[in-house]
Amino acid sequence: MIDLRSDTVTKPSDEMREAAAEAEVGDDVYGEDPTVNELEARMADMLGKEAALYVPSGTMGNQIAVRAHTERGQEVLLEEECHTYKWELGGIAQHSQVQARTIDGGDRGVVGPGQVHDGYVEGDDHRPGTGLLVLENTHNSKGGTAIAPERIDEAAQAAHDHGVPVHLDGARLFNAATALDVPADRIVREVDTVMSCLSKGLGAPVGSMLAGPDEFIERARRIRKLMGGGMRQAGLIAAPGLLALENRDRLHEDHRRARELAAGFGDVPGLSPSEPETNIVLVETDEPADVVLDRLRERGVAGSAFGEHTIRFCTHWDIDDADIEAAIETAASL
Amino acid sequence: MIDLRSDTVTKPSDEMREAAAEAEVGDDVYGEDPTVNELEARMADMLGKEAALYVPSGTMGNQIAVRAHTERGQEVLLEEECHTYKWELGGIAQHSQVQARTIDGGDRGVVGPGQVHDGYVEGDDHRPGTGLLVLENTHNSKGGTAIAPERIDEAAQAAHDHGVPVHLDGARLFNAATALDVPADRIVREVDTVMSCLSKGLGAPVGSMLAGPDEFIERARRIRKLMGGGMRQAGLIAAPGLLALENRDRLHEDHRRARELAAGFGDVPGLSPSEPETNIVLVETDEPADVVLDRLRERGVAGSAFGEHTIRFCTHWDIDDADIEAAIETAASL
Amino acid sequence: MIDLRSDTVTKPSDEMREAAAEAEVGDDVYGEDPTVNELEARMADMLGKEAALYVPSGTMGNQIAVRAHTERGQEVLLEEECHTYKWELGGIAQHSQVQARTIDGGDRGVVGPGQVHDGYVEGDDHRPGTGLLVLENTHNSKGGTAIAPERIDEAAQAAHDHGVPVHLDGARLFNAATALDVPADRIVREVDTVMSCLSKGLGAPVGSMLAGPDEFIERARRIRKLMGGGMRQAGLIAAPGLLALENRDRLHEDHRRARELAAGFGDVPGLSPSEPETNIVLVETDEPADVVLDRLRERGVAGSAFGEHTIRFCTHWDIDDADIEAAIETAASL
Amino acid sequence: MIDLRSDTVTKPSDEMREAAAEAEVGDDVYGEDPTVNELEARMADMLGKEAALYVPSGTMGNQIAVRAHTERGQEVLLEEECHTYKWELGGIAQHSQVQARTIDGGDRGVVGPGQVHDGYVEGDDHRPGTGLLVLENTHNSKGGTAIAPERIDEAAQAAHDHGVPVHLDGARLFNAATALDVPADRIVREVDTVMSCLSKGLGAPVGSMLAGPDEFIERARRIRKLMGGGMRQAGLIAAPGLLALENRDRLHEDHRRARELAAGFGDVPGLSPSEPETNIVLVETDEPADVVLDRLRERGVAGSAFGEHTIRFCTHWDIDDADIEAAIETAASL
Repeated sequence: MIDLRSDTVTKPSDEMREAAAEAEVGDDVYGEDPTVNELEARMADMLGKEAALYVPSGTMGNQIAVRAHTERGQEVLLEEECHTYKWELGGIAQHSQVQARTIDGGDRGVVGPGQVHDGYVEGDDHRPGTGLLVLENTHNSKGGTAIAPERIDEAAQAAHDHGVPVHLDGARLFNAATALDVPADRIVREVDTVMSCLSKGLGAPVGSMLAGPDEFIERARRIRKLMGGGMRQAGLIAAPGLLALENRDRLHEDHRRARELAAGFGDVPGLSPSEPETNIVLVETDEPADVVLDRLRERGVAGSAFGEHTIRFCTHWDIDDADIEAAIETAASL
Repeated sequence: MIDLRSDTVTKPSDEMREAAAEAEVGDDVYGEDPTVNELEARMADMLGKEAALYVPSGTMGNQIAVRAHTERGQEVLLEEECHTYKWELGGIAQHSQVQARTIDGGDRGVVGPGQVHDGYVEGDDHRPGTGLLVLENTHNSKGGTAIAPERIDEAAQAAHDHGVPVHLDGARLFNAATALDVPADRIVREVDTVMSCLSKGLGAPVGSMLAGPDEFIERARRIRKLMGGGMRQAGLIAAPGLLALENRDRLHEDHRRARELAAGFGDVPGLSPSEPETNIVLVETDEPADVVLDRLRERGVAGSAFGEHTIRFCTHWDIDDADIEAAIETAASL
Repeated sequence: MIDLRSDTVTKPSDEMREAAAEAEVGDDVYGEDPTVNELEARMADMLGKEAALYVPSGTMGNQIAVRAHTERGQEVLLEEECHTYKWELGGIAQHSQVQARTIDGGDRGVVGPGQVHDGYVEGDDHRPGTGLLVLENTHNSKGGTAIAPERIDEAAQAAHDHGVPVHLDGARLFNAATALDVPADRIVREVDTVMSCLSKGLGAPVGSMLAGPDEFIERARRIRKLMGGGMRQAGLIAAPGLLALENRDRLHEDHRRARELAAGFGDVPGLSPSEPETNIVLVETDEPADVVLDRLRERGVAGSAFGEHTIRFCTHWDIDDADIEAAIETAASL
Repeated sequence: MIDLRSDTVTKPSDEMREAAAEAEVGDDVYGEDPTVNELEARMADMLGKEAALYVPSGTMGNQIAVRAHTERGQEVLLEEECHTYKWELGGIAQHSQVQARTIDGGDRGVVGPGQVHDGYVEGDDHRPGTGLLVLENTHNSKGGTAIAPERIDEAAQAAHDHGVPVHLDGARLFNAATALDVPADRIVREVDTVMSCLSKGLGAPVGSMLAGPDEFIERARRIRKLMGGGMRQAGLIAAPGLLALENRDRLHEDHRRARELAAGFGDVPGLSPSEPETNIVLVETDEPADVVLDRLRERGVAGSAFGEHTIRFCTHWDIDDADIEAAIETAASL
């Protein structure tokens, strides 16, 4: 199977497996796992934040962030297709008792500073008041768009003008950095906190990082415990995570392959691929997405339904040039 | 002071005061207040629903409805300027742990069936699923627009097509019925539950009604207790509420006065009034709303700030033709 | 029917009805109801607190207090039979997301300072930490016991030693003051906030008061809105509430009648009444409470089931000496 | 350092590390990790339940269970020192909005059927009603007591008599089974769901299992996603988990060492150890626990403060006979 459903499906490399086997470990609930501690320090440094926290999933990282930033009853501004709002089971209402106020980020999911100003609500006797702005980069549901640091800066500044903190869901932050050819810490310079996944394009088996100010991460650590995210000898999976950080340098290949996939699919009647900015290709289908997906799957190619007539394909670490070529041939032969 | 801030400011009539004084009462927490029981039966009948429940405020009525209809973690579809979403302190996230998904109802706040279909989310492993559609009629923040029964029917039917129940915030339902010249029960025919206020245009001192199926009202009664809305000898305020129901017949005068106010304000430079459909006039102001409001107030006329350059004026039971004339003259003299 | 189920069943007096009819009113959501404002000022003064807030029910008063004092996830210390824990539908978990830690207050429901020290939990990475102590006086479920101010002081001081605030559920505070022959403000001197009901022994038709520091009441007012407890021309029911305050002077008669009822029931085989401290008589029954209650009710006397073999009888404003005599005769004739 | 703080501190064996390195993995969020699937099937079988779910921590397992069993506002019966109530940051109120009702399980933490009957609350208009009974075996805070299956059966049966489901926190279930010399599935035969940790006495680096009926585990899987507990190539840590199951056979050695430790400490003036039933020794100290712990730690022995004058010592996989001997000598030399 040429598995293009998601970049989460990557298998760990032999080096990662070896790193797991040899990891120096301790009890991370006591803060004593040296590999986790190293990973947290490395990530904090790489993102230009004071501290970082290892969490089992990106969803937990985002949900902890919302909880740690807000008081119950506040409003949270989010792009209307962003992961935190759309794909996390309404968690922000369940974990944090906050109300979503959504912003239409257009084709690329870019939240403008004017939209932040317009969406901001001053708390009073009837209105909850805005407690947080959540941004996402790359923007998954918009096709992996890589949003320029200046756009993030502007939106964050607009929030800060009202005293509102900003969290960035950077599940695929390093894809954005690669596509934009800037360091990751430049992109998140103006946001207060950031979540970034090791288990997507970077290819680690398990885990995500939440980074921000020391005081924030201290609170986040307690909420992680509340969520049940405290793991014991987590160095076993943090060690492959450390190696995964080195994979940043090869993300440009995933992006090239995504462009090649899009180009190839563009020649197939009935398929209208987006122009990919990173490792995600959204394809509009004349026939229902489910029908196309079933046919592809029978022939050994897998994608994800993203709408009634939309399929998402993701390139990643386990996909090589031959896979791309084969996927295009398969699509052409349907 | 000519108080046009809201139709909630009305003072009870002498008849209402007398009715309060003579009300037959009992302990409504035991269900033994005959006046409350009569009011609940009258309202259920008037709205064509099986049962009704007396609650201290419209906010409590709406919040109980959301809670009784949904499971935590679901999504609720609401028009983006509706009261339940905008003016109730984020209550739906706090009381019900549900996530708002908003619909842009345009200038008049009308939610179309296509928007309901588009907004509907099927619950799965990542998405919470839609649990309720909330409509509002008249739509307060859109200037008291009276939405035709067919529009309500269509939206409700779209929700029902997906098995989603519908609650209507009819805080000013009788204004809508008057403007549209249809019985109130026609407007709410296709919605499952409805909240309607006694203390707005109808002029009662305190209270709102929540109506719906017997089984729903039974659950709502328990949630009212949880919210602290169980009152004892509530007949004292239910009795004026019963008289308030008779005020439906005079709402057309409030609407005529609103039109006259709008016409008069239209001749004042710097003021751009909406064309009122019911008892609410929204006025765009060239100068900041706060400045205009302060000047008016110094001269004995009160309105409500509804935006940086928007003022809301409400006609009601305590405003007569002379007040309208005086308000226009005052505005003209600024 | 001689209705001894609760002191909530009292009908308003003619003076109260007249006061309702003549009340000066305004819109209390805008803070403009002069009668409500007077009632709040009077109650604040009477309880020795900076400010007070009128709420539709004692349950709402207690629930607002818990919410305003705590952060979600904290623990609240409460006597294990107290109303806030036992009879409010688990509201503290639902409204405030706090965890109950209960204290056994023995036969009289008295929480000792040592128990507060033992129950106190320091928050850390695994333990939520104590956020509030709730006391109750008189203690309803323990039979209306009137707890001496020194006992309240001690428990409150123990909480304050740990920086924990104290709320007192004084639904029947004036009964306690009467029984102990001290001013109400003496009893609540050391607690931070207090809820007291107008609609129980004092005989008002509707409403309770929450009193405390200015800053607390400001927060409480916002939470009242969230709960849906904001009422408009509430002066109509606040006016009888003001008169009800004068009824403090006659509570000693309710207490005398409770003692007479207990004495009379004590002579009836199969009934074992408590020695009442205020207006509540708990009666242990040889036969199941339901059976005894049904027989009494058929003969015109009503009480409340409080356990499988326990009935509660309450004396109040609408019960006179003849009622007591008749109730005893009825019980004797079963 | 002879680390007796907890059995969570164990380092994975070489075999476990090798198993991690060689694990067959897939994306467990898609249900495609064969090693996780094998572990879930093995555990379900071993506990005699239909299905099982791998979760990052015992806390998450318990919290998911409470959430999946209850509706918000219900009461949960728990022993007053149990982990779910005492050590999980008030999670049941935060995640599930349920109210704790605690039972005093005495010296050994055994909940009797009579206590369940007494604690059961029938839901009505004022009372939330009981939604779940939580038991714990071995009981950590009571010193690792191993509760006989018949005691669990009785308590569970009492709950079932009222239609109330039962969850067992079996973080150290296999210690109980070893001490009682019965299969683990016998202990949990009458409970509906059970959580059991791989990362305590069994020595796995990360993870716990939640087991129960198919339909329950399906709901639990969705709540795991909500909590952020969905991990990707989790087979890397599930593989050591599978090996950890084989460690059941050596738990009796931990228990023997605990007895030896207790015996040795019993000869030290100022220390009063409990008689251990499994791998936990609680020691009462004449001097403050903190003081004793600091002195021990300086000399290379670590325990956990469990009270002002109580220390907990845990034996485990990484503690051998020489460690026990050394720990006793160290204590004797203080």
